[in-house]
This record gives sequence, C-alpha cells and structure tokens, in this order.
Amino acid sequence: MPHRAEAEALDRADPLAGLRDRFALPPGVIYLDGNSLGPLPRATPARLAEVIGREWGEGLIRSWNDAGWMDLPARVGERIAKLIGAPQDSVLVADSTSLNVFKLLGAALALRPGRREIVTEADNFPTDVYVAAGLADLLGQGHRLRRVAAEDLPASLGPQTAVLMLTHVNYRTGAMHDMAALTRAAHAAGALVVWDLAHSAGAVPVDLTAAEADMAVGCGYKFLNGGPGAPAFLYVAPHLHDGLRFPIQGWLGHAEPFAFAPDFRPAAGIAAGLVGTPPVLGLAALQIGVELALEAPMPTVREKSRQLGDLFATLVARECAGHGLRLLTPEAPARRGSQISYAHPGAYPIMRALIARGVIGDVRAPDILRFGLTPLTLRFADVWDAVAVLREVLDSGVWHAPEFQTRPKVT
Amino acid sequence: MPHRAEAEALDRADPLAGLRDRFALPPGVIYLDGNSLGPLPRATPARLAEVIGREWGEGLIRSWNDAGWMDLPARVGERIAKLIGAPQDSVLVADSTSLNVFKLLGAALALRPGRREIVTEADNFPTDVYVAAGLADLLGQGHRLRRVAAEDLPASLGPQTAVLMLTHVNYRTGAMHDMAALTRAAHAAGALVVWDLAHSAGAVPVDLTAAEADMAVGCGYKFLNGGPGAPAFLYVAPHLHDGLRFPIQGWLGHAEPFAFAPDFRPAAGIAAGLVGTPPVLGLAALQIGVELALEAPMPTVREKSRQLGDLFATLVARECAGHGLRLLTPEAPARRGSQISYAHPGAYPIMRALIARGVIGDVRAPDILRFGLTPLTLRFADVWDAVAVLREVLDSGVWHAPEFQTRPKVT
Repeated sequence: MPHRAEAEALDRADPLAGLRDRFALPPGVIYLDGNSLGPLPRATPARLAEVIGREWGEGLIRSWNDAGWMDLPARVGERIAKLIGAPQDSVLVADSTSLNVFKLLGAALALRPGRREIVTEADNFPTDVYVAAGLADLLGQGHRLRRVAAEDLPASLGPQTAVLMLTHVNYRTGAMHDMAALTRAAHAAGALVVWDLAHSAGAVPVDLTAAEADMAVGCGYKFLNGGPGAPAFLYVAPHLHDGLRFPIQGWLGHAEPFAFAPDFRPAAGIAAGLVGTPPVLGLAALQIGVELALEAPMPTVREKSRQLGDLFATLVARECAGHGLRLLTPEAPARRGSQISYAHPGAYPIMRALIARGVIGDVRAPDILRFGLTPLTLRFADVWDAVAVLREVLDSGVWHAPEFQTRPKVT
Repeated sequence: MPHRAEAEALDRADPLAGLRDRFALPPGVIYLDGNSLGPLPRATPARLAEVIGREWGEGLIRSWNDAGWMDLPARVGERIAKLIGAPQDSVLVADSTSLNVFKLLGAALALRPGRREIVTEADNFPTDVYVAAGLADLLGQGHRLRRVAAEDLPASLGPQTAVLMLTHVNYRTGAMHDMAALTRAAHAAGALVVWDLAHSAGAVPVDLTAAEADMAVGCGYKFLNGGPGAPAFLYVAPHLHDGLRFPIQGWLGHAEPFAFAPDFRPAAGIAAGLVGTPPVLGLAALQIGVELALEAPMPTVREKSRQLGDLFATLVARECAGHGLRLLTPEAPARRGSQISYAHPGAYPIMRALIARGVIGDVRAPDILRFGLTPLTLRFADVWDAVAVLREVLDSGVWHAPEFQTRPKVT
C-alpha cells in the first residue's frame, strides 16, 4: 500500500465509520490506547450531568428507587451480557476486575471442595495471578496456584485442578486463547474455568454460552468505554447458580438487604455477587459506553479489527524494517485480539517520543510497545499516519533524546 | 420554644449558616437523610464535567499521570485523615465500606494468628456482621463471630479475641460508643479494634490517634457528601504497617504495579490496601465533599449537631405527644451521633407521608424513623418546620391512607 489514499478508501467503505463521531476525540491525536482506557463517548458528559444534577442533587435519597440506581448493576449487566453471549440474570456490574476475580475464584473453589489447584498461564495479567496466589494462601488448606506456559495448559489439567483461570486475550502480546477448546479441556478434567475478558468484551466475539464457560470477569474502562476506573463485571453460568457461595458476603448480596436481618442469606444466583453500595456515577458512565458498543455488530467490529491489524503489521514491516521491532502478536487473525504489540529494547523512550507527536499507545514491561486497535473510533488513515510517525521516530533516532528517557509513574 | 422566630434567631447566630449555600438543595425539601446520602455540593458538577471532558476526553490515558488520577486514593485519603485524627500515610480511599471491612478484618486476624474470635455488637450494621461471619467461614480454621449486646462488650473480650469490630455510631439508634474506652478494653485483652466510621466521619469528632484505634473504615456518601456509591476509606495505624498483609492482593497494592512482576510484593503500609484500578469519577466527587467538610471546624459542627438534636427532641416531645413515638437515641449529647431516631409501629407509612410533604428522612427495619441532622446544611427553622409536618401527619392520621402502605424497594 504505497499511498495513504488507499487507507482513505478503506475508511470510505467502512460500515463503522459513523461511530467515530459519537466519541469526543481530541484533535491532533491518534489514539491507540483504547485497550487501556477507552475514549469518551459524546453522550457521557450530558448523562453524568443529569445523574449528578437531577438525580443526586434534586432526587437525593429518593433516586435509589425513582431513578433506578439500585437496579444499575443488573441493568448494565444485562446489556453487557449481549456482548459476551451470556443469558439473562447471569451478569452483574460491581467492584473492580481484581475483586471480581477474587469473588469468582472463591466461589469456584467452593464448588470443587476436594481439589486444591488453580491453574493459570504464566504470562497472565499480574493482578489475576496475585489475587489467585493470595486467595490460595488465605484459605490455608493447601491450595496452590500453578503457573504454566500457554502451550502446556491442557496437559497441566488433572484430578487436582479445581479451576483453570485464564485471560482470553493476553494483555502484552494480544494473543487470544481458544475459549471453547480450553474450557472443554478443563471440563474433561473436572475443573471449572474462570475467564478474564478484560481485553475481549466489546473488542472480539465472545460467546460464553457456546463455549460453556463457567465464570467470567471483565473490565469496564477498556473496550467498553466506561471511563477511568469504571466498575467491572462478573458472570456465572446459570447451571452453577444453585448453591453458589461467594467468599465475600456483603449486605447488597443478601436476599433482602433492606430487611437488615441479623444473618446473611444470599440472594439467588449472580445477585449474591454484589457486596457494597453500587458506584452510581461509574455505572451511569459505563452504561453509555456499553450502549455504544452494542450499536456496532460484532462481526463487523471483528472484521475491521482484523483489517486494522493487518494494515498496521504490513506497514510496520515495510516502513520500519531494520529498526529491530519484533512482532509479538500472532499473525493468524483467529489467534489475536484487537491490539498489536512489538518488542523493542527502546520501547519506553520510543513510546514517549510517539506520544509527544500525538500517537498514543502504551508500553508494558519489560520492552513491549502496545498499539490498541479500537474499531469504533480508529480509521485506516490513522494507522497509516501512526506508522509514518513511528518510522520518523525510528529513522531520526529522536527517541534517544534525554527528554524521553525518564519513565512516568503510570506507563 | 413556642415560636418559629426563636429557631430563626438560632439560624442567624449560626456560624455554619454560610455553608448551606455551598450545597444544591432542591426547593420545598427539608432534607433529613444526609446520613444516608449527603446532598450535592455546588462545586461537584463543574469538577466532574472537567474530569470527564478535559481529563478523560482530552487527556485520555495520559491523565493517570498528568491529572494525578493514580494518586487520588492517597490524596483524598490524606484529606479524610484530617477529619478523623489520622496521621499522614495512614488513610486510603478504595472500594466500598463492606470490602474494606473484609480487607481490614483479614489483615487484623493475620496479626493475631493464635486467636479465633471476632467480637461485635449484635446490633452492628448488617454488612459488617455478614462480612465478618463470611470471612470466619471462609478461613475454615475455627474462627467465629461473636455477637453481644453493647453493654456486654467489655466483658466479652478475652484471650480468644482477635478483633473487636464496632460501628462507632449505631445506624438505627444514633447511639455513639466511647471509642477510646472500648479500644482500651480490647487492647487490655490483647485484641485489635476495627472501627466503622460510616456515621461518624464528617459528623462527630473522631480522633483515631488519641483513641489508639488500630484500624477503621468509613463511608464516602453519607456525611462526606461524595455522591451515590462514592468509594469508602480505610485506615491502619502506623505501628501496624510493618508486616501488614491484606487478604486480597491486587496489582495496585503491589510495591511496583507497573513492573508487572510475576510475584506479589506488597507496597509499604496502607498502600497495600489498594486492589484494583481507582474509580476516578467517584474519587473526584468525593474530594469535593471532603474539602467542604474540612471547611467547618469540627467543634462547631458538633455543637450545632447537638443543638439540632435537642431542638428536634424537645419539639417532638411537645408537639407529637400521645402519638406513640418512642425516642431511641440517647439523650446525653456525648452518647449520640448526628441523627435522631424514633420507634413507631407505623414507621414506614409515616415516613412515606412525610416524604410526600417534602420532609425526607428514612426508615430502618423493623419500625424506626431516622432523621439525620447534617449541620452543614440543616437550619434550626428546618427542624421546626419538619416537626410541624410530622405533627400534622400524626394528628391527621393521613399516614393510614392506602397510598403510603406499599414499601419501596430501597427504604
């Protein structure tokens, strides 16, 4: 593709092109970090102003009923369910992804009382690993977390495996697991599976029902565009609802929270996964982002994501050859999520130089450049321009400048 | 006080009178439920619009550094610390009150490994009780929760007591514990104390340092005016920071979250109490509420709260005599928080009739009318008017009307 005009032609033919204007993207920026923090939907400021001014300011305490605040965890959960192939009454929005991993792992271990092992991928996102290791320690009953390479996962499952805990799309490389196949392998070993959909929900096709997934968590502030620190979601398959016990039992998971009964009696099903009072501002913002994601047909999203990735990789291979960028993302479309990653020893300063030029991706330790591809907002011409800037940064060697060497607190 | 003019005179002399205009209170409402959801500070909508539009919309991922999002849990925590007599680096804003109870109880039990008992007040807020009972079950090591009457608390502490867990101001009656005395009693038994400040922070004087309290949690959406479902806070006394281990270890509690190291290494001190990504919208709103609370000198707040309570009780005793209202709140100012509660068999319909007339309090099972007294916004004339409406509702018997008999979902 020698000319930018070809990328522009792809944009003209893009059925999702109209969605970009539904987001408030700043001028002069090519945003390749929607996999870390999704951009702001244009509808969000007005909705939040309404929640704050009218519902909180005027409605006050009455809004828990009148504005439906108390139903938000279930109501937004029902909408997310549509994105991930989950049936009614199986998804809830609450707390953070990390906390939901804790809650689901605890619930899963309780359903496999004779088994002591949580199996995960060694390269899983650290918080999942930390939470699982911490829970195993806490229980003090000989539970342990076993971390194995991705290719060794099926062979690691056995009669001691209580839970297989995996992140569907790898946060560093963008590699995507075969959810159905790994779930089958876990079930064959008698284990349950907890899927982390942080980099999947809203980005790639997910069908928890078809995959027979047992439990899942996911993030509200990445491809769901719910805003910084948006609440997360959790899913439990309906056939596990009977006898479900979460390791944290808070008042809003009670069958009758406002009876203020002395003893805990869990709500039926997924509803017992609520703990404390719902974060209304975060839920309201997330709702806007989820509704936007639902407007885009997932097959179309997926196809554009694949094309964006192919274009990015093709252009980098041609324009940036000889600069030592090593592609980490699998080339087969079925094996990758909606990001593209490269290893480079100068990942940190290169990214800082890119950001200074308005091309915003991020880095992950130790040496990985991540470029998120969000089909709802990204244009093919943006990819063309981003690679042109990357080439300029590499060709000029400007990233060696001292100003790009210091690392910010959050990378 | 036969005339409203006397209440108006108290308002004219009120040194806190100017703060009322800093809140956006709807016309025609007397709000006596700031102990359940604090009213909206006038500064909040503009601040949230800035966080959403400029920090999220334009700053995007860069705002984690540039707008200081990542520091919000500690920064807002430092401000709350000033309200509760806590030193620097001992308070953090995170998650919900319920989750923080779980985290602190887990940390406290780990510090008392030979002891198996959590002691609490039978009439403690249910979520604290549920969380504690659930944690005891989860640990599966013979831990148990012992619930005793308030007056039996000191005698219940012994060599098996790991933790005394109490809510400082009772959610139903408004009765306030002697924090220093009960903490001394627990320490004398070798136990730690976890205080729940849900109805205390911003409402009554709290000095965790002087009381030698070990740990505390508190709520952001009551007297701190942080908005519906605002994040909560947690405190751990500095002398317990060494070797502190929380039962949930998430990536933001890691000493170096962005190293993405394979093993968890807790951050020093209270910082290990973070789990997932901070809820930025909720934190930004809470910050505004906390700053407002800090503008009012606590002795002045306390004195006005006492006067409001005295006026309320005096007027009810005189105006509503013979209607069967039974005062539940201790009359001694030192023994009560910033609310006043009455038992009445018709509590639910009476409150619904009051709300229909613009007097907003709430009810708690089984039969309790709660009236929160928020000194930052409430006028003495409001108390006078509220009791006049209560009298009218009781005298007329209008609360027997069918329209007031159905209970809303959230009460």
